[in-house]
Amino acid sequence: MNDYFSFDLTKKDGEARLARFCTPHGVIHLPNFAPVGTQATVKTLTPDDLHALGTEIILANTYHLYLRPGTQLLANFGGLHHFMSWDGPILTDSGGFQVFSLAHRRDIDDDGVTFRSHIDGSKHRFTPETVIAAEEAIGADIIMALDECPPPTDRAYVEQSLARTHAWAARCQAAQTRPDQALFGIVQGGIFPNLRRQSAEFLAGLDLPGYAIGGLSVGETKEQMYATLDSLMPSMPTDRPRYLMGVGTPEDILEAVSRGIDLFDCVLPTRMARNGGLFTHNGRLNIRNAQYREDRRPIEEGCTCYTCQHFSRAYLRHLLQAKEILGLRLATLHNLHFMLRLMENIREAIAAGRFIEFKDDFLAAYRISDQQKRHENRAAYQARRTP
Amino acid sequence: MNDYFSFDLTKKDGEARLARFCTPHGVIHLPNFAPVGTQATVKTLTPDDLHALGTEIILANTYHLYLRPGTQLLANFGGLHHFMSWDGPILTDSGGFQVFSLAHRRDIDDDGVTFRSHIDGSKHRFTPETVIAAEEAIGADIIMALDECPPPTDRAYVEQSLARTHAWAARCQAAQTRPDQALFGIVQGGIFPNLRRQSAEFLAGLDLPGYAIGGLSVGETKEQMYATLDSLMPSMPTDRPRYLMGVGTPEDILEAVSRGIDLFDCVLPTRMARNGGLFTHNGRLNIRNAQYREDRRPIEEGCTCYTCQHFSRAYLRHLLQAKEILGLRLATLHNLHFMLRLMENIREAIAAGRFIEFKDDFLAAYRISDQQKRHENRAAYQARRTP
Repeated sequence: MNDYFSFDLTKKDGEARLARFCTPHGVIHLPNFAPVGTQATVKTLTPDDLHALGTEIILANTYHLYLRPGTQLLANFGGLHHFMSWDGPILTDSGGFQVFSLAHRRDIDDDGVTFRSHIDGSKHRFTPETVIAAEEAIGADIIMALDECPPPTDRAYVEQSLARTHAWAARCQAAQTRPDQALFGIVQGGIFPNLRRQSAEFLAGLDLPGYAIGGLSVGETKEQMYATLDSLMPSMPTDRPRYLMGVGTPEDILEAVSRGIDLFDCVLPTRMARNGGLFTHNGRLNIRNAQYREDRRPIEEGCTCYTCQHFSRAYLRHLLQAKEILGLRLATLHNLHFMLRLMENIREAIAAGRFIEFKDDFLAAYRISDQQKRHENRAAYQARRTP
Repeated sequence: MNDYFSFDLTKKDGEARLARFCTPHGVIHLPNFAPVGTQATVKTLTPDDLHALGTEIILANTYHLYLRPGTQLLANFGGLHHFMSWDGPILTDSGGFQVFSLAHRRDIDDDGVTFRSHIDGSKHRFTPETVIAAEEAIGADIIMALDECPPPTDRAYVEQSLARTHAWAARCQAAQTRPDQALFGIVQGGIFPNLRRQSAEFLAGLDLPGYAIGGLSVGETKEQMYATLDSLMPSMPTDRPRYLMGVGTPEDILEAVSRGIDLFDCVLPTRMARNGGLFTHNGRLNIRNAQYREDRRPIEEGCTCYTCQHFSRAYLRHLLQAKEILGLRLATLHNLHFMLRLMENIREAIAAGRFIEFKDDFLAAYRISDQQKRHENRAAYQARRTP
């Protein structure tokens, strides 16, 4: 750490951790969830909306911002904070995940990766050095090292890829020039305990200000994901924030917090909202269903979000049926409110030493069908893959 | 008028009128502009956004609401105000304009009009009686009589159509049962002074609480529109609000106010915003143009709207280029702010007895190209036609 960053672990409850990560743009109370603002906006919301929701950090995508509006333009504007008028902490991924998702439109080698833009087909190249330059131009508080996210169950490939990811992490660290950005390394290793452990130990040796776990929630089963966390977590540094990338659902977040994860991001709440999928403490509902046509109730009784305070399920259903933009916004507000209140409740439960009780109570009430689960996993996975 | 409504003309400045129209949901200060909320939402905005903009009345479309979510559903919810959570005045058109725009999908006779839904092709029929029933179910403060909007320059057709429009106005009045809604008659007559005068006199004889002028801004030239107003206005009742339907641009509004019009509605500010067309006091700009790519200025220096207070032209351009929903919202906020401030400035100018000076100053600064004018006219016309 340095003068710009500090990590304070204030309480442990089992493996669950209550902590604060201080950044140049504010404190992130952990565990916490970062709404995804891919293209310099959390879709449908203003910065004021985000503050009103209690958002403490957002994620932006280097791949997208590099292509549009371009990192040089962002640098000219004094960085993404100024450009989008968000004064809270930002985290940027490295763009690696999106580039590797491009499948036949990219070509990876030990030095970096060449790819074609999904917007206009133009050719570009990312290396650890160019990615750090891009992330420095964007100017987020937390920046991610370039890594490769391999198919999690192909051992031979994962092993080979891991060496590359480690070399790239070291190159990212060497390339970094700004002390006011915290470079997080990304632990890979697929579903293989030895590789994960090896990765955590290698990255710990770099003494980075934070560590992420990548390559999960990318197609493996939930059991494999939880088992991987179980075997990996004892190897993760305890005095740094731990960020599980691209996760997740309320259940995954609770399971991961119980294993010692501090930070999450996922497009699921926002993307699902735009498709009418809304969180409640009793599971998810799809507001487009005909059964809500005349339903005068809010999405969830007792919910204090703006949407539930003002509008009925019937109105929200009407807006989505009529393809009205306001519907997308109201649904997004509700789902992010739900996720951020969940994180707040998790923190309160850890502080009170009753996290496992809270988790069990939450999951006992939160019942979603197997079909919804499959849909949710698929949606989260595909949402992350598609640039 | 009755206990629910009152019209107070507080000041005249030339023909321009400063007035207040009191409705069950609040006072409308005239001259004023009603943002269009076709499908129970002013696109992209919440009711809170509308209040913050200083909106005093919104328009909703009976045709659209009748088809979706349906007028019975709205009645079950206690009307549109409750359904959409907007507690200010609402005006509903009769649906006639949209139905007649359906061209080959409608069939008109003296009793009413049969048409096919643009959503699912299903068959429906509007008569003066069914339209009033629909508008009573929706529950707006101001409801419009069913009229026919004929091609404005086809004299034989306009004359025949006018008799029907008058008979329908009388039938609407006879069908009305709710005293808490003000039924406005619609003066038709194309571009023919005698027919317009005849229409105004017939409707005045019905002693309705307000009068609209329909059938303008539907393809005739600006000169024809202004000339029609010039010859018509002396026949319009002076002790009732006068509403020019579907108008308009800042210039048209100023010209019409100078001729004694009190109320306007138009999709132009909101629809144009979603296409990147933004009002400034020096004319319109299209924020998608490459010249704004790195422009750090707000849309307009000195503008007090939320968008201009927080964001650069470059950011707004980025959002629209990236097809981000937030861009549509921020552009809409700016354009409605511009229109509603224009109306406020008009009222202040009339109060101060310097309306013509204000109008001349505004128009001297507000320079838009002939190409923009043609585009604007076409856009406003087509936007009104397309259900």
